[in-house]
Amino acid sequence: MSSTAEHGPPAARGDRAAALHRLRRSHEQILLGTLARHGTLSRAELATYTGLSRTTLFAIVADLLASQLVVENTTRAAGQRGRPAGLLSLNPGGGLYVGIDMGRHRVRVAIANVAHEVVATGRHALPAPSRWADRADVAIGLVERLADDAGISLAPLRTVGLGLPGPVSAEVTDTDRKGSDSARSRAQRGLVRTFHERFGVPVSVDNNTRLAALAETTWGAARGARDVLYVRLSDGVGGGLVLGGQLVRGTRGAAGEVGHVTVDPDGPPCYCGGRGCLETYVGGLALVRECRRRGTEVSDVDGLVQLVRDGDPAVCAVVAEAGRTLGVVLAGLATEVDPERIVVGGPVSALGEPLLAPVREAVAALTLPAFPDPPPVVGSELGDGGGALGAIAGQMAAVETGLAPN
Amino acid sequence: MSSTAEHGPPAARGDRAAALHRLRRSHEQILLGTLARHGTLSRAELATYTGLSRTTLFAIVADLLASQLVVENTTRAAGQRGRPAGLLSLNPGGGLYVGIDMGRHRVRVAIANVAHEVVATGRHALPAPSRWADRADVAIGLVERLADDAGISLAPLRTVGLGLPGPVSAEVTDTDRKGSDSARSRAQRGLVRTFHERFGVPVSVDNNTRLAALAETTWGAARGARDVLYVRLSDGVGGGLVLGGQLVRGTRGAAGEVGHVTVDPDGPPCYCGGRGCLETYVGGLALVRECRRRGTEVSDVDGLVQLVRDGDPAVCAVVAEAGRTLGVVLAGLATEVDPERIVVGGPVSALGEPLLAPVREAVAALTLPAFPDPPPVVGSELGDGGGALGAIAGQMAAVETGLAPN
Ligand SMILES: [Zn+2]
Ligand SMILES: [Zn+2]
Repeated sequence: MSSTAEHGPPAARGDRAAALHRLRRSHEQILLGTLARHGTLSRAELATYTGLSRTTLFAIVADLLASQLVVENTTRAAGQRGRPAGLLSLNPGGGLYVGIDMGRHRVRVAIANVAHEVVATGRHALPAPSRWADRADVAIGLVERLADDAGISLAPLRTVGLGLPGPVSAEVTDTDRKGSDSARSRAQRGLVRTFHERFGVPVSVDNNTRLAALAETTWGAARGARDVLYVRLSDGVGGGLVLGGQLVRGTRGAAGEVGHVTVDPDGPPCYCGGRGCLETYVGGLALVRECRRRGTEVSDVDGLVQLVRDGDPAVCAVVAEAGRTLGVVLAGLATEVDPERIVVGGPVSALGEPLLAPVREAVAALTLPAFPDPPPVVGSELGDGGGALGAIAGQMAAVETGLAPN
Repeated sequence: MSSTAEHGPPAARGDRAAALHRLRRSHEQILLGTLARHGTLSRAELATYTGLSRTTLFAIVADLLASQLVVENTTRAAGQRGRPAGLLSLNPGGGLYVGIDMGRHRVRVAIANVAHEVVATGRHALPAPSRWADRADVAIGLVERLADDAGISLAPLRTVGLGLPGPVSAEVTDTDRKGSDSARSRAQRGLVRTFHERFGVPVSVDNNTRLAALAETTWGAARGARDVLYVRLSDGVGGGLVLGGQLVRGTRGAAGEVGHVTVDPDGPPCYCGGRGCLETYVGGLALVRECRRRGTEVSDVDGLVQLVRDGDPAVCAVVAEAGRTLGVVLAGLATEVDPERIVVGGPVSALGEPLLAPVREAVAALTLPAFPDPPPVVGSELGDGGGALGAIAGQMAAVETGLAPN
């Protein structure tokens, strides 16, 4: 069969190898997901639940047993004759996923097992500005310490997922796609290499804010939702878009950059080089600046949250206006993508209802009146840990949809 | 095996049946797509190209041969011994897809064969307003006449795809998803039944403008692009979003409604019940109205196109402003979804560069400056036939991604 392949055109050969790899990973993950949901199943039940042929199923189960991701209990029911039926279940110690969020100011790590249970999480502050290589060292040290503290061996590690700030191009992880060889891409590829060399497993990489969006759909405020619009309000504003359960990456790796949607082309300058971006109205720095401009001394986002809790009328007015502006932008995006849920996260979302209520009102007023139920606007549940969790969810989702993480 | 299934929880049984069905359809379509690309292949080559197991492949090929979608040529190479190797290819007369666009003013039909070749297209004007049942009669008559004229038998018809104006909820075609039992949904289900009873094959349904977006990615101005933002400028404004090669439908079936993105919450009232929607600035009716308001007598969109070609300065100014407004909205959406290409279609797009140039400028100015190449803004290529073609592309795409059209 391989000799036949060599006669195919080169493109078809590459396609085929990639397709085979994806199909295999996808089938594996379908089996693991089915076992995660149902607990213990026979091979016949697995075949029934997954729709895989017996040939395919038996081959993949054999591999999963060999790699100790799955364990088999051989029992014989009372009165049963012949060969005993093996019952298969996940080996909780048999597979690990590591998610790492390399933020600008801190590194966060999460470790999950093959049953999708988070078994360890941790964070480490970074002296800013840090070089990528130094951040990688911190992250690797943190992974090792967390595993050590929890008494976990990293031997069964399957993949590492990396969340990074800024745009992440598809070409960094997807060798099928072409893209520019920018300095950013080269730095990202260097990080992938560093982690791959240290851990010896495939390394995937994506934008950390996008990954936080995916984490909210897996473990957080949008659990179970398939179509989610996520915005993260920090000093600046980022976001992520999940459609059909999958993270939207975009052609240049820039999907989800809601913070740079233009509110007013003649508005304040933005660090992105544009003017009047959403970030210049509702980012933490912008809110603090606007309060000061109106004469209220505010130290930072924490101070802002405290003043809103105290009911300071000037600060509450600034926050309400920001909520309204955010709601107008989110309503526009919701009209285009029709999400099931809108999640607002990041440190600024600690403002709570004084911010969220006007967002909700604007979304209700400015999305199609033909639908009486506008998408609910809710605060995120995962806080700062979302990026690392999302880097785990990304690995699982990538494989489940047939797109191998590397 | 079926007895095992009956012991599973009811939800799992439904999931399994649906999963089995999807997997089967998906494998079939992978085989058909591979034969469409490569022409003639042996079973061994097919196994190599598709990554399917021999067991799965042989079973599906047997079915495809039995249903005459695929034909086998048994030849023996010179000097070859043993059983001759069968060479498989698509049977161009062996499978048909019908796409029907049921617009408000006309019905359009396209017929394609299993090799994805369009073999017949036609249109029929409707007296407005027409009842759905009457439009269905017109469409059925048109399909029959087109097939007759082209000497095509409808016996090998595989599926019918329907494009309809307005929101199309997922629950109409996707029994896995819950949704409201609205009057619209009931009418759409009635149409699906009518066509299913007449043609005896699965019937899929989606919004016709969204389908036109998909057609542009298959046969039109965005051929080969995976992520496409499409806007259709007619009397009103609609659109569609293709991400990762798949049509985005949205949680309530309303994705792509770019015409009702709010430009100004205090703007003119829109038929949707909102105010200041994009449609009230750049729809054909809005443009004609604005020209009249400024003192230029314009009959309709055709008259508008003629005046712009004649270089009428007042009309050109109106069109340029509309292009700018459209560009601002498209730039915002492009910042969120990072498309590969933006396609502007519909009758108003006949205005050409006087409209498209300001769109392009706004998109370039208002998307992330970090990316030097903003998404290209191009006119559509398929014109009014896009909906019917898209209804065919939708059937193919649905099956290729493992989502059966019914
Ligand atoms: Zn910006
Ligand atoms: Zn409207």
